[in-house]
Amino acid sequence: MIVLGIDSGSLCTGFGIVEGTGNRQRALTYGAIRNRASTGHAERLTVIHDKLKAVIQQYHPEVLALEGVFMAKNAQSALKLGQVRGAVMITAFAEGLRLMEFSPAEVKAAVTGYGRAEKAQVQHMVKSILGLSEIPEPHDAADALALAICALASGSWSRRVGER
Amino acid sequence: MIVLGIDSGSLCTGFGIVEGTGNRQRALTYGAIRNRASTGHAERLTVIHDKLKAVIQQYHPEVLALEGVFMAKNAQSALKLGQVRGAVMITAFAEGLRLMEFSPAEVKAAVTGYGRAEKAQVQHMVKSILGLSEIPEPHDAADALALAICALASGSWSRRVGER
Repeated sequence: MIVLGIDSGSLCTGFGIVEGTGNRQRALTYGAIRNRASTGHAERLTVIHDKLKAVIQQYHPEVLALEGVFMAKNAQSALKLGQVRGAVMITAFAEGLRLMEFSPAEVKAAVTGYGRAEKAQVQHMVKSILGLSEIPEPHDAADALALAICALASGSWSRRVGER
Repeated sequence: MIVLGIDSGSLCTGFGIVEGTGNRQRALTYGAIRNRASTGHAERLTVIHDKLKAVIQQYHPEVLALEGVFMAKNAQSALKLGQVRGAVMITAFAEGLRLMEFSPAEVKAAVTGYGRAEKAQVQHMVKSILGLSEIPEPHDAADALALAICALASGSWSRRVGER
């Protein structure tokens, strides 16, 4: 099973693709899609769409893992983040991916064994689980990989997949 | 020039396609894409995407007109609305449409001549401008048609179109 984790952001969207085989997990690719603050919000969506589509077509993930529970500072930033999430979902669905969503606590628990773990612990465990030589940068990419690891570790595939 | 106006909403997204020829404008189609409250937010995006794609491929609009300035009640509703907007934009961009955005005051001014017009006035003028036999229902469809009329009436094509 191959999972695409996405940490959505208007200026920086982290992505990570993880392949799970038995108990082993390995990162096929990860990184971040950056947009300049001067770029219009619609153009940002196009940049994210184009990059994600290319990555999906290269690595053929079957599942999109997103953070489901969400805290926004204010309505304006929530709108921008929502637009990115909508663009990410439509891009992934068009390529046949199914959606799984996890709360931050679920991700932390899956990766570190503790639902209230610190960000640094999560990043350290992402590095360890995937056998990487260093902690993935930027942290958005590490967060995206953590989402993918969580999706692969989830024992409730039949229940969660296809909930969309 | 053919314009697709969209009044984005998570439960009900209004759409209207208006063709402008010289000073004449006529509605090619309009309506609303409804989602049940029980439908998951990701499935709602898929429903909106599929319907919009079909309408775009049938009527070939060249421009997507959206409301650019936006007031949300709270962060959660802003996130949901943002997701719909992101899905709408990516769907339209994939079909080659360009984006134009207008504030509510711009739409009201373009349709009624008065930027603080009441909703009922706007709807009445939409009916009148497009030569319809009755006010388009639901009001989301009338709002979408108003956006399309505003885009066609805008004298600043070269500046606005392609801003994304």
